[in-house]
Amino acid sequence: MTEFAIGVDLGGTNLKLGAIHETGELLEQVLLPSNTQAGRDDVVERLCKAIMELARRWEKQHQLAGIGVGIAGIMRLKEGVVIAAPNLPGWEGFPIRNQIQKELKAPFVLENDANAAALGEKWLGAAQEIENFAFLTLGTGIGGGLILNGKIWHGMSGMAGELGHVNIRPEGRLCNCGSHGCLESYSSATAVVKSVKELVESGRASQKLRSLVESNKVLKADAIFRLAMRGDDSSILVFREMGRALGIAIAGFIHSLDIESVVLGGGATASWDAFQETMFEEVHRNSFIQRVDPRQIVRSRLGSQAGIFGAAYLGFQL
Amino acid sequence: MTEFAIGVDLGGTNLKLGAIHETGELLEQVLLPSNTQAGRDDVVERLCKAIMELARRWEKQHQLAGIGVGIAGIMRLKEGVVIAAPNLPGWEGFPIRNQIQKELKAPFVLENDANAAALGEKWLGAAQEIENFAFLTLGTGIGGGLILNGKIWHGMSGMAGELGHVNIRPEGRLCNCGSHGCLESYSSATAVVKSVKELVESGRASQKLRSLVESNKVLKADAIFRLAMRGDDSSILVFREMGRALGIAIAGFIHSLDIESVVLGGGATASWDAFQETMFEEVHRNSFIQRVDPRQIVRSRLGSQAGIFGAAYLGFQL
Repeated sequence: MTEFAIGVDLGGTNLKLGAIHETGELLEQVLLPSNTQAGRDDVVERLCKAIMELARRWEKQHQLAGIGVGIAGIMRLKEGVVIAAPNLPGWEGFPIRNQIQKELKAPFVLENDANAAALGEKWLGAAQEIENFAFLTLGTGIGGGLILNGKIWHGMSGMAGELGHVNIRPEGRLCNCGSHGCLESYSSATAVVKSVKELVESGRASQKLRSLVESNKVLKADAIFRLAMRGDDSSILVFREMGRALGIAIAGFIHSLDIESVVLGGGATASWDAFQETMFEEVHRNSFIQRVDPRQIVRSRLGSQAGIFGAAYLGFQL
Repeated sequence: MTEFAIGVDLGGTNLKLGAIHETGELLEQVLLPSNTQAGRDDVVERLCKAIMELARRWEKQHQLAGIGVGIAGIMRLKEGVVIAAPNLPGWEGFPIRNQIQKELKAPFVLENDANAAALGEKWLGAAQEIENFAFLTLGTGIGGGLILNGKIWHGMSGMAGELGHVNIRPEGRLCNCGSHGCLESYSSATAVVKSVKELVESGRASQKLRSLVESNKVLKADAIFRLAMRGDDSSILVFREMGRALGIAIAGFIHSLDIESVVLGGGATASWDAFQETMFEEVHRNSFIQRVDPRQIVRSRLGSQAGIFGAAYLGFQL
């Protein structure tokens, strides 16, 4: 009997599960609302129930190798405790590993969601041949993961790879994490929307962009992207700034780590065509390593499924 | 017979050599001028000659385990070729490993000087119990080294650890490396002197600082430090800015790598008392990891000898 693993990706909005065959084939994907407002115990209960149901459906055909669970939070991995999780309100201090253990009664690996996604890209995505790379997921926030020597780099306490919180503008915007000028405050989808609102408030936005803001109760980055692609100068400017911030941060990762590649995932990479030019410009401008020895900066290949693939990969290691 | 190794540290000004016993005892240190204006072939010739003479003097009592050579330049270590070396003019493209091999006719390890110094601190200095740390050497420029899992992190091509060239002010000063706003441009000894000159030119410097600048043809950071320690507001300000830049960069290293510690070496750490306060402030302000789980930021213990100790350590690995 061949093996399969289950990979879980718990974010602030969606709870995703995948039953993934050892060949990398996605046997089944399950998408549920995270429903975080019901409270953390409830979320964990539903998460474990969904895992068990999915396992039951595939255990007749294949053997379950293991389960990997990626969580949108920063954890002390040794203790299995959440330290910070802006997208999972009330989870700070939550002993998540113990809680899952109680419900699940099966072996599993706990991991940060962006770390898991990085590993997914290494296994089956944009970084299959690459041993050393940084992964950024550009979404509501910016998650990060470092793969060094082919493995997730955890650091001292399991919090490494918080690449969205490197400082690129010391006197800059206040970030959700309490610091100022983090990359996340300039290059996440949320940051793009914020930049647009600032531009409108300053009176420097185009008529089209002002209309877009006025006509949308919930403004989304992809609507701004479409405007940029139709040639709206104000929208173009906003994505150019997003790209600049990314490029500055990426240059620093290259200088510090001499990595081979940087992979960008997350919903906001849909705007790639609008931000890539200034991103590459800034990496080139800020990194002599890039100038003498260019590194690949590429888009994720697994998109929003990178997390479940990476988590499943961890399940296979059990 | 017990063993000894030879460690070499070639900088822009000094060529240092140490014969170091396997116990870590410094048997003999040799200090020569680098004399770079004589040309790179001449420097390598004298370097090799000095190694052989030092070896000969100690080979009667101990067995030579190996030789380590730290160079103040960024190299593609696999090829052994210098990529950039602002302190060794004309060395770009120099196939240094081949050249040393020709002259020395003995096995040796080539390494970047700051990487070697980091390893020295790990072996016998401020990081003996620490497996994961960043090392910064604050001198004319800022060198860097990363120790991950107890070893030098080289990255893809041996250029990793260029921590002096992470960007902390995107619109900032032009750096020697061709980028803008590098840490080196704000927190090296050279940067401190530059800040003082800018302050004087802007008319905002104190009378004492103006006098210092006027009476010194070659202004040095330690003279400014002494003025700061005597309470001169302008000088204090300059070091506070130096500390801020350091803190911003260090916060980023902690976020990216979740390292246990940061060790600061190099001549400009003599001004520790003048820059440490703002450095710690900024690390705290910019890093939630530091806020929940403080990391040690400490001074080098081996000072200017860290490089020869670390290079000798590499010699022992041969």
